[in-house]
Amino acid sequence: MAKKVRIALDAMGGDFGPPVVIPGAAISLTRHPDSEFLLFGDRAAIEPLLGAHPALKAVSRIVHTDVTVSMKDKPSQALRRGRKNSSMWLAIDAVKKGEADVAVSAGNTGALMAMARFNLRMLEGVDRPAIAAVWPTARGDSVVLDLGATIGGDAHHLIALAVMGSAMARVLFDIERPTVGLLNIGVEEVKGGDEIRKAAELLRTLNLPQFEFIGFVEGDGIGRGDADVVVTEGFSGNIALKAAEGTARQISEFLRAALNRTWRSRIGYLLARNAFKALRDKLDPSKSNGGVLLGLNGVVVKSHGGTDAEGFAYAVDVGYEMVRYDLLTKIYQTLNRDGGPLVQVPTPQEAVS
Amino acid sequence: MAKKVRIALDAMGGDFGPPVVIPGAAISLTRHPDSEFLLFGDRAAIEPLLGAHPALKAVSRIVHTDVTVSMKDKPSQALRRGRKNSSMWLAIDAVKKGEADVAVSAGNTGALMAMARFNLRMLEGVDRPAIAAVWPTARGDSVVLDLGATIGGDAHHLIALAVMGSAMARVLFDIERPTVGLLNIGVEEVKGGDEIRKAAELLRTLNLPQFEFIGFVEGDGIGRGDADVVVTEGFSGNIALKAAEGTARQISEFLRAALNRTWRSRIGYLLARNAFKALRDKLDPSKSNGGVLLGLNGVVVKSHGGTDAEGFAYAVDVGYEMVRYDLLTKIYQTLNRDGGPLVQVPTPQEAVS
Repeated sequence: MAKKVRIALDAMGGDFGPPVVIPGAAISLTRHPDSEFLLFGDRAAIEPLLGAHPALKAVSRIVHTDVTVSMKDKPSQALRRGRKNSSMWLAIDAVKKGEADVAVSAGNTGALMAMARFNLRMLEGVDRPAIAAVWPTARGDSVVLDLGATIGGDAHHLIALAVMGSAMARVLFDIERPTVGLLNIGVEEVKGGDEIRKAAELLRTLNLPQFEFIGFVEGDGIGRGDADVVVTEGFSGNIALKAAEGTARQISEFLRAALNRTWRSRIGYLLARNAFKALRDKLDPSKSNGGVLLGLNGVVVKSHGGTDAEGFAYAVDVGYEMVRYDLLTKIYQTLNRDGGPLVQVPTPQEAVS
Repeated sequence: MAKKVRIALDAMGGDFGPPVVIPGAAISLTRHPDSEFLLFGDRAAIEPLLGAHPALKAVSRIVHTDVTVSMKDKPSQALRRGRKNSSMWLAIDAVKKGEADVAVSAGNTGALMAMARFNLRMLEGVDRPAIAAVWPTARGDSVVLDLGATIGGDAHHLIALAVMGSAMARVLFDIERPTVGLLNIGVEEVKGGDEIRKAAELLRTLNLPQFEFIGFVEGDGIGRGDADVVVTEGFSGNIALKAAEGTARQISEFLRAALNRTWRSRIGYLLARNAFKALRDKLDPSKSNGGVLLGLNGVVVKSHGGTDAEGFAYAVDVGYEMVRYDLLTKIYQTLNRDGGPLVQVPTPQEAVS
């Protein structure tokens, strides 16, 4: 049997901490019985919960700490207060020390990014981190990045994103050569800023075996599934994600209110409830929970802070797959083929301060 | 009675031309009987359609031209081929010459922007154009800009957008002092690029009487109606708009398929059909059609190219209101108060080439 996947959990992260993290890990373990866990956090809070999940308990070890990064801490505060001793830091540090293969946290994004970067350092050939996630589309799922780690960036930064995102799509979707598109405000070659047109030109010239560059994708092309991987800098990626999430929420609230307005529509709702359940499942954020921090010497997965156990389990699943199918090696080999880095990424401005 | 509102129509613009433009104008005229029209385009195509709308015919004059800007023309081609003689140019030129108060076209956006800018020139105090439109939200409607006219821009550009967008909100929503937010990837002060934080600081300091600056708005805040006016540069504005449109389309297609799957859900659909009709109306793009080109010495409205007569009528309505409630004066007075321009806008890069 293959080596176990060792998962470090920030048990205190997120809006709820252990009551979500522990049952979440237990759910993921049923799907991936070859996982084992290091649980960082308050032993008094973790231990009783673990008692309810004997299978998880059997493959877990608790590492106690009193220090927790708050959801409100700025990255600089988190580093000052929680470096070396917080549950978040220790989970990341386990990856750094080789005691775990991946760290998963529902804690605050800025702090997680800052700590991961500070401790794990950037991968050779990448200068700035990115957050990637799975976006449900009409055709299945796509990987979209960067969702807000780094604002702006030049053509080489966009190419590094394409390399990392396509490696993630190969791991998650089991596609040999995923399609990659650059997010733009039009599909014509004249559209967009210089850095986007330059990146398109370079990607066409490089014509890498690991993915197929298909050109520009517009905002409505993400959900249509125009490409397996959609690449953009972190500002517009974050705006796109939240605009889409906001629209989905707005529509389901409107529909709920409209269906409740008359007795006829309430009966109609009851008869068609399977259809609505399917829609709810489709829109359920816990079904696509788990942003992957890319560009680091190690795998770190960020879960939504407000998610439930099912959602946290999904984030753990993502972490598991990244390790099992060797994300880092896939990225590294593409970035540093032919004995040298593929791209030199100069320094764009960062979102996290 | 007040002066009539004189509307110049590019009768050949859009995917369909006169068969949409003429009935669209007729619908708008029933709502605003104090309009009159100049119709630019092929007399042989326009005249028979006008025969079916005697009320419109009574207040319209056809100005014949053979030349039409194609939906595929690049802005530079359109200017080369259609300057001085195309239906699009002539409609804009009527505004320039004072023969019309507003021009409405469903023709190609890049060409319309280039011609409008070339002919009308920029308003004093504004260096780059913007496109603004109405975004339906949970709280009512908001104005969002820039939707793709100008990529990037510094703090002063964002402030000019805030001034223009708030003037549009005052005209359309009849609010004395609309709220204005800057689109950002977080609501904390440390988030976003330099230009956004600088703009926020300036807007707070200026504290203009014409609008209330409320700080940053995230992508999901647009649809929640967090601000009456949401300001961003053209790249992320365009991405946000299309990501939201794409999500809405994706959800309604999914729901249609799910409701069709079983006889129970089909009956449910029939019983609840008023609820679905309400949702369809809410999502109907023709109900919020009409992007306003801002920053020019004149009012130009862009209709979606693929819209129907009802949608085109909505774009004409928008043009009517901009004139009737004096958009340009409102913008000009805010920009050039105290005898000098409020902001000096240096030159960001442009989307239209």
